[in-house]
Amino acid sequence: MANTDLATRTYNHGWRLDPIIRSLLDTDFYKLLMLQLIWSLHPEVQATFSLINRTRHVRLAEVVDEAELRAQLDHARTLSFSKKELIWLAGNTFYGETQMFKPGFIAWLADFRLPPYELARRDGQYELSFHGPWTHTTMWEIPALAIINELRTRSVLRGQGRFALDITYARAKAKLWEKVERLRKFDGLLISDFGTRRRHSFLWQRWCVEALKEGLGDAVLGTSNVLLAMDGDLEAVGTNAHELPMVAAALADTDEALRAAPYKVLDEWRRTYGGNLLVALPDAYGTRAFLADAPDWVADWTGFRPDSAPPIEGGEEIIAWWKAKGRDPRDKLLVFSDGMDIDSIEEAHRHFAGRVRMSFGWGTNLTNDFKGCLPGGGEALDPISLVCKVTEANGRPAVKLSDNPEKATGDPTEIARYLRVFGAAGRHAHPVSV
Amino acid sequence: MANTDLATRTYNHGWRLDPIIRSLLDTDFYKLLMLQLIWSLHPEVQATFSLINRTRHVRLAEVVDEAELRAQLDHARTLSFSKKELIWLAGNTFYGETQMFKPGFIAWLADFRLPPYELARRDGQYELSFHGPWTHTTMWEIPALAIINELRTRSVLRGQGRFALDITYARAKAKLWEKVERLRKFDGLLISDFGTRRRHSFLWQRWCVEALKEGLGDAVLGTSNVLLAMDGDLEAVGTNAHELPMVAAALADTDEALRAAPYKVLDEWRRTYGGNLLVALPDAYGTRAFLADAPDWVADWTGFRPDSAPPIEGGEEIIAWWKAKGRDPRDKLLVFSDGMDIDSIEEAHRHFAGRVRMSFGWGTNLTNDFKGCLPGGGEALDPISLVCKVTEANGRPAVKLSDNPEKATGDPTEIARYLRVFGAAGRHAHPVSV
Repeated sequence: MANTDLATRTYNHGWRLDPIIRSLLDTDFYKLLMLQLIWSLHPEVQATFSLINRTRHVRLAEVVDEAELRAQLDHARTLSFSKKELIWLAGNTFYGETQMFKPGFIAWLADFRLPPYELARRDGQYELSFHGPWTHTTMWEIPALAIINELRTRSVLRGQGRFALDITYARAKAKLWEKVERLRKFDGLLISDFGTRRRHSFLWQRWCVEALKEGLGDAVLGTSNVLLAMDGDLEAVGTNAHELPMVAAALADTDEALRAAPYKVLDEWRRTYGGNLLVALPDAYGTRAFLADAPDWVADWTGFRPDSAPPIEGGEEIIAWWKAKGRDPRDKLLVFSDGMDIDSIEEAHRHFAGRVRMSFGWGTNLTNDFKGCLPGGGEALDPISLVCKVTEANGRPAVKLSDNPEKATGDPTEIARYLRVFGAAGRHAHPVSV
Repeated sequence: MANTDLATRTYNHGWRLDPIIRSLLDTDFYKLLMLQLIWSLHPEVQATFSLINRTRHVRLAEVVDEAELRAQLDHARTLSFSKKELIWLAGNTFYGETQMFKPGFIAWLADFRLPPYELARRDGQYELSFHGPWTHTTMWEIPALAIINELRTRSVLRGQGRFALDITYARAKAKLWEKVERLRKFDGLLISDFGTRRRHSFLWQRWCVEALKEGLGDAVLGTSNVLLAMDGDLEAVGTNAHELPMVAAALADTDEALRAAPYKVLDEWRRTYGGNLLVALPDAYGTRAFLADAPDWVADWTGFRPDSAPPIEGGEEIIAWWKAKGRDPRDKLLVFSDGMDIDSIEEAHRHFAGRVRMSFGWGTNLTNDFKGCLPGGGEALDPISLVCKVTEANGRPAVKLSDNPEKATGDPTEIARYLRVFGAAGRHAHPVSV
């Protein structure tokens, strides 16, 4: 007996669109932490965020339909935090702390909407940017990326038959589970989902997080996706991102202020948050320079998240620095999050075991590994290196140098100035895959 | 919005059981062809069929619950051919011929029910047998095997969580699709599903057949499963099985009549069917003996289905025989069906390409390959070598020698007598995996 639920079927026929972003909590946790800081300390700053597709050969504007993209972005702008979500943000414990988000901030969130966007096409790519108060534009980063990545997925899969889809997902599931079975053998592994922005789709990310939890249990620290954390009773994880030092640097009036900007940001952060949230990104303007000039109190922080240096070298450099500062690295934490996958996780885990606490933020290669999964072959589902970066603050250009020149962003003249101020020591180019 | 179809859900709650066999067409096509012959030429013969588990270490009576087994067998006994099914059997074209099944036979089928069964337990195994008219007991073979195999599947999977099930099927799908992609590269491949009796489950067999069709297109000749052929508009394939010579041999009164029995059966077959259905099983009492004594007209048949000799050796022996008889093997057909899988199909296809027409009956390793698919590991889903064979005809013991002594069945004294009559030349033991 074929038992069709006619009501559901008919309801589905009537969908205007299948929304990708259905909640403002469908974002990374660190965006909310940063947002509270921005809201409390920099409410007047204007910031522009812009889309950058580092995988130029994928001509996104030819793959993703503009009308669909506008419909999804427009839909995201209709969202507001629901009462349930705000109550959860106010009442939940994050990193062991209650009331991480202050009542005034929660009240302000109640009226939050995503601001307008600007969309144009050039040379096969989308030029998508967000101008306005930093308190609003910052919140576009994750949903904008998730929307474009999922629209690309949908576009590729639209041409596939029911059967090819079945095989595609069966393969992707089998593939992820092979990774989980390998990870299960690591002693003392700690891992988190960091894959929201680059995910294949929302539902697939949810499946991946469930798979991780099912297969690795307590080795899973949590997910950076706030909605999945809330719905799945998982820990929401994440601390801060490059936009904080990038805006601080852009607003610096002198070279001296520029050199001090990364530490000024950390000082603001430690005044806002404490404990386990004291994890610093060292690489915005080169880890070598950052460590050389860092005040002693930075060595008191819980740890670092090296995000562009090769994991082994980057980790060793930081460990040597802790030792030079008289700290015991075994009390310290390294969070590896730059394009990690099973091999690099395994290598870093083996290399540093017993010498430092560590955890892994597993992103694109967790939530978007469909390489070799399409029955017809081809790379149409391979992830691309798409980012949404702050490009201006109060009308001044924003710059990231990174430990890997391939990941640098900003105006070339400005990059040259930053390199003069911070130096280029320790920076080495290596290909950016995701 | 979670949209639950309450009616369906509630209906499902009320199931007394989830029936494995839901149609009498859920059987192998050759059973119907043989049945018509038995019905027209041997309506008075009494035949006993018995279950034999060659994989002794799997203690079926400890895995499969007896009450569930009885419920499934009882349910199968409530089935009759539906009007739609009989109209299809009468009106469909099989092997290019209309009216393969005669009106008198179709009319007789309308009242057909599966006969009673006898079930007991001994030493961790089930003793399941069917006594009665051959016209009825023969029809239990496939459903009895399918029921036990699927109950074993259900029993193993009952302890698995929703997630483990998801991984298990994802892996099995990915695994089958790897095989399909390998097969796709073979030029001129012809392949059929022969996997009903040993299938993991009905729904899984259906998926496998759909996968084959999707991936290999016209290389798929069809399926031996009549229900899947009807529902999927595929060719129903198959000819005859060992029970015909086994019953003829059991009923032979003298050694001379015994020696003539295999050819008497073929003579009955060619009087009943013609053309593409003239495919002989040579191995019931050893291929060497069969070919040595075969009348010349056997060489006029379309081909052979070697079912227990190693494919290469068995095929070469038959090709040499055709040549000795002055026939061109390139006009002849070999159907390989003994525990074939991707490697043996590939090997035989390469070996015989251009020298003989060939096709492959792919059974257990198509519809029940879950090796390595359970997330927890283990062999609980590995297929077992379960058969349901004719063991008596009119009270006399039935015997199969086979080219592989491991596949011989019957009373040891009788086996010795058959070996005196037919000789043991060309028989070689090799392990029976499925």
